[in-house]
Amino acid sequence: MKNSKKHTQKIRKQIIGLISGTSSDGIDAALVDIEAQGHERKVDLKAFETYAYPKKIRSKILELAHAEKIILDELCSFQIILGDLFGDAALAIAKKAKVPLSQIDLIGSHGQTIRHLPPTASFNRGMSFQIAEAAMIVCKTKVTTVSDFRVNDMAWGGHGAPLTPYLHYYLFHQVGYGVAIQNIGGMSNVTVIPSNASLKDVVAFDTGPGNALIDAMVSHATRGKKQFDADGAMAAKGKVQTLFLNKLLKHPFFFKKPPKSTGREEFGVVFAKHILSLAKGMSMEDLIATVTALTAHSISENYFRFVFPKTKIREIILGGGGAKNKTLVHFLKRCMPMISHKRFEDYGYNSSAIEAMAFALLAFETSQGTCANLPEVTGAQREVVLGKVTPGANFRSICLK
Amino acid sequence: MKNSKKHTQKIRKQIIGLISGTSSDGIDAALVDIEAQGHERKVDLKAFETYAYPKKIRSKILELAHAEKIILDELCSFQIILGDLFGDAALAIAKKAKVPLSQIDLIGSHGQTIRHLPPTASFNRGMSFQIAEAAMIVCKTKVTTVSDFRVNDMAWGGHGAPLTPYLHYYLFHQVGYGVAIQNIGGMSNVTVIPSNASLKDVVAFDTGPGNALIDAMVSHATRGKKQFDADGAMAAKGKVQTLFLNKLLKHPFFFKKPPKSTGREEFGVVFAKHILSLAKGMSMEDLIATVTALTAHSISENYFRFVFPKTKIREIILGGGGAKNKTLVHFLKRCMPMISHKRFEDYGYNSSAIEAMAFALLAFETSQGTCANLPEVTGAQREVVLGKVTPGANFRSICLK
Repeated sequence: MKNSKKHTQKIRKQIIGLISGTSSDGIDAALVDIEAQGHERKVDLKAFETYAYPKKIRSKILELAHAEKIILDELCSFQIILGDLFGDAALAIAKKAKVPLSQIDLIGSHGQTIRHLPPTASFNRGMSFQIAEAAMIVCKTKVTTVSDFRVNDMAWGGHGAPLTPYLHYYLFHQVGYGVAIQNIGGMSNVTVIPSNASLKDVVAFDTGPGNALIDAMVSHATRGKKQFDADGAMAAKGKVQTLFLNKLLKHPFFFKKPPKSTGREEFGVVFAKHILSLAKGMSMEDLIATVTALTAHSISENYFRFVFPKTKIREIILGGGGAKNKTLVHFLKRCMPMISHKRFEDYGYNSSAIEAMAFALLAFETSQGTCANLPEVTGAQREVVLGKVTPGANFRSICLK
Repeated sequence: MKNSKKHTQKIRKQIIGLISGTSSDGIDAALVDIEAQGHERKVDLKAFETYAYPKKIRSKILELAHAEKIILDELCSFQIILGDLFGDAALAIAKKAKVPLSQIDLIGSHGQTIRHLPPTASFNRGMSFQIAEAAMIVCKTKVTTVSDFRVNDMAWGGHGAPLTPYLHYYLFHQVGYGVAIQNIGGMSNVTVIPSNASLKDVVAFDTGPGNALIDAMVSHATRGKKQFDADGAMAAKGKVQTLFLNKLLKHPFFFKKPPKSTGREEFGVVFAKHILSLAKGMSMEDLIATVTALTAHSISENYFRFVFPKTKIREIILGGGGAKNKTLVHFLKRCMPMISHKRFEDYGYNSSAIEAMAFALLAFETSQGTCANLPEVTGAQREVVLGKVTPGANFRSICLK
């Protein structure tokens, strides 16, 4: 009896979520209000900002992320430097939201990934290494901080990713019909939420490249002057070379059954160079158009193979930088004309803030001792409580004997 | 009122402490009963064992600890491999003590240090990097695990070391007179506990070399056949060369005021080679005797300079491998004949288990939200709760809303 009462109690927390993605542009900081009652969660964004990394910091991150060998002393001091910056981002977002730090219950910090090694056939445990020392965040803010969200899932054989579907579920499960949340970042991933789904019904996987290949082509075509195809304008000027597109669509990843995940190891600089070598003689406009089509078609082919046969989907909800590429969105609509196409913004959400909001929610679940990985999604053997908790000044109030 | 009642409640926990020291021989595992009431702690050792590392593991650790550049992917997978071994050690010590894992409240895992970089004049935050992924320990044992004990202190500008004086205090503060706990491991450190001391009165610092230089001389003299001077037998055959000893005792570290810490960077292989180059022509027995005397005199000179002028000490209590070196102990007694010389064992403690016991106690303090660094000792700006908490199956029972 006591227990059931406890579960229907309303709990409110103000939490800051922090993350820097693989693009390593800066720290996304979201301050959210979380209201939990039983199995329901309301996640309300109060303030959001991306705090750009200083140039030197960004290049050091990219160096650490790409070098085979690294100087260990440098990594150690960089943990501190980044932790300090993450702490600053927390201070800044609280200030922006006009919320005193003493009213912040928790910080959830994803940190900065410098290695993500999924489990393989030869080594059945993967490892994901995020830096930005949580103790520095606590030192700056005094707020108890949850970090290292991926390793607990990976200890149980999971990929430690994706973790954002947990938030997607709470944002969209009540719309009343099946939806696919399609995030187009560097890579692309989908979260499938069937109508009337419970958390266990959620399916999510990487569909393949997002903006990474388009960006690489644009950078090549402009000799580094442009880093991405703003609004899809360059792609709009070209013509999709169908034969070449069909060849690229034969990539085995698009045929692989979920759960599956990918990264720049598979669809990064090396693959972009491969495309360039195959596309000799093609105009750059045509090439950018074709690679944009590749991104759209690889998404839709995944849907036709692995989503639509199992789940009735009425709507696709787009997020990530790719949602701003009009040509890409146009191609996607042409591939899947029978479902409606929306954006996070149509639901009143800031799509840039989603990942930071997710780690705020995940920190909340950690503080409640609630498992928040989705084993069907990550491939882990079981549900686990995620993260490591670094105690802040308010730790006593969240910690019992 | 409520609070004061809470503080006088008796709390009992069964906790496993795990650590591998800088010698990287294996994992020390201690299962302890902790009884806490107000500011008192009883720490009762139930079982102890050192689980030797497989040879390949040890060489990989030494490689990571000494190489400037490391392969980051290897470090990531090694985190998992070591975490797995630490988990095994926890399982084994619980089995040895015949305590079911479901009755273990917490694990405190120090992990394996691969870098310890104290704060410097140019970078005011140090960093200490311990590996052995706690999520793997939790995966194996299901027990909530506290790890990463040093970084929170270092975030506040501390050295993150030493942390064992916290346990020393609780083991010896009630003896009724001033004592010095002298640990002689690779390096040597002292914990000074004045008569009727409170925790804030504890002083602790590194005194300089422990066995490191003696071991290096023995290894040199025997061309690697022996790694240490068993019972001090080799030193006993030699004659201390006083002039040479006095020269070595001029090392500035012995004159430096506490708080201070040192390591193999200062008194390791490089310094050993320096001694060998200065000692040309000296017999190896004399050299080993002289370096053994250096170790003893450097300890006592630190006492005469920094301990005795401030604190009345009646007893020195020896621990660590050096306590087994009869010649070293003989020299120490000759240097400080006015105080009585004892060993941990004289008090019924297993001196090999002390460090593992310390991290069990520190994990307990983390779970209570109690600060357990000693700022006077570590140099941190303030007291902090140490560690990061990785949730296990029993996390709900130690975690509130």
